[in-house]
Amino acid sequence: MTERDDVPGRFRVRVVAEAIDRFAEGGYEATTVDEIAAAAGISRRTFFRQFRSKEDVIFADHEQLLDEVKQYLAMGHQDPWAAICDAARLVFTHFRESRDLSLRRYRVVQLVPALRDRELVTVHSYERIFIDYLREARPDEGVLKIVGYAAAVTACHNYLLRAMIRGDADATVEALDVALADLRTTYGVAPGSGTDQEVVVAKFPAGTPADVIADAVRRQLGSDGR
Amino acid sequence: MTERDDVPGRFRVRVVAEAIDRFAEGGYEATTVDEIAAAAGISRRTFFRQFRSKEDVIFADHEQLLDEVKQYLAMGHQDPWAAICDAARLVFTHFRESRDLSLRRYRVVQLVPALRDRELVTVHSYERIFIDYLREARPDEGVLKIVGYAAAVTACHNYLLRAMIRGDADATVEALDVALADLRTTYGVAPGSGTDQEVVVAKFPAGTPADVIADAVRRQLGSDGR
Repeated sequence: MTERDDVPGRFRVRVVAEAIDRFAEGGYEATTVDEIAAAAGISRRTFFRQFRSKEDVIFADHEQLLDEVKQYLAMGHQDPWAAICDAARLVFTHFRESRDLSLRRYRVVQLVPALRDRELVTVHSYERIFIDYLREARPDEGVLKIVGYAAAVTACHNYLLRAMIRGDADATVEALDVALADLRTTYGVAPGSGTDQEVVVAKFPAGTPADVIADAVRRQLGSDGR
Repeated sequence: MTERDDVPGRFRVRVVAEAIDRFAEGGYEATTVDEIAAAAGISRRTFFRQFRSKEDVIFADHEQLLDEVKQYLAMGHQDPWAAICDAARLVFTHFRESRDLSLRRYRVVQLVPALRDRELVTVHSYERIFIDYLREARPDEGVLKIVGYAAAVTACHNYLLRAMIRGDADATVEALDVALADLRTTYGVAPGSGTDQEVVVAKFPAGTPADVIADAVRRQLGSDGR
């Protein structure tokens, strides 16, 4: 199969994988674009048509994911608080599905301070997108609530993402769902949570036994005792 | 007064101020260390004894503040959730007190992508310190709650800090205090907030008029109606 016949996305993935393997074996600084191109069986020129630099190869996934996240959010959502959690889930799932490659990339990045910094900056772009989206979707909401919520969603996602990549068996997509649902409850933006359920009003006939009242109150407060 | 007689901290502040003025006038890239040294009336060698690079001059305040924040947290605090808010306040107050210089620095940073990135990375160090401190101070607390809370505190602080520097009259230290107190309430870690006050239990003689009950409930729920 020639380069021209190849699917562009799959072609990029192959170059990314080759580049990361070369970085892992020979070191990031020492590996040249020519070596990456040779390993991927492409010309230097073809490499530079797809990536601006050696560094860009490392973060190619994020460029693509940031676009996907923007597109997802632009679709419009009834619950924007949940929508950014779903967008974070999309990123998590992507790296979960290519976990082996993600781990090799992670190890390369950890060894090079400049790459660690670039990763931090890249990751911050997600938070920026979440904030812009929420401010547009909820123009009447206090901006500091949005800023804090978006930061917390991003930080929790990143924590679990890194744990998953490093091989923590508890850092599953289900764990992410639970963490982000907890966060929506904390911020009072989960359906059925928030201020509308913080108060229980109860009325009983005088003389109702304490146990009966306690049971009724327990039911109203929900089975989790909150 | 000779350089040797000068107070080291004040000496650094003077060089930082001169450097930022030179960057603002001549552009960051075009300004050389020699020009900064000449403007500050020091030798190139003295400059490099205080700063590793031109870039370091811009972020000298953060280096110092990160140390102050670490020292403050290391003092030990009864309420670690509030302690990181106080640490954030310390950073805010520092830049508030040198607002003119902060604004000139902000303008220089905004024009140079590499400086914006470096600022993001520097700012992330505060979040990292907050997380490490909270994990040590509250080892039994869920790590995702800590991660989300620290990210939210940092993000809200940064938002108000940037607003203050840009001249937003509402972005005061009092506004920061309110925002961070709200955040502690959201996370259920404010003294007197959290699950222990989410439930109001009331008992009235049968036949008590609805208005009397409503007033009593209102008092229990607090004057802010929560």
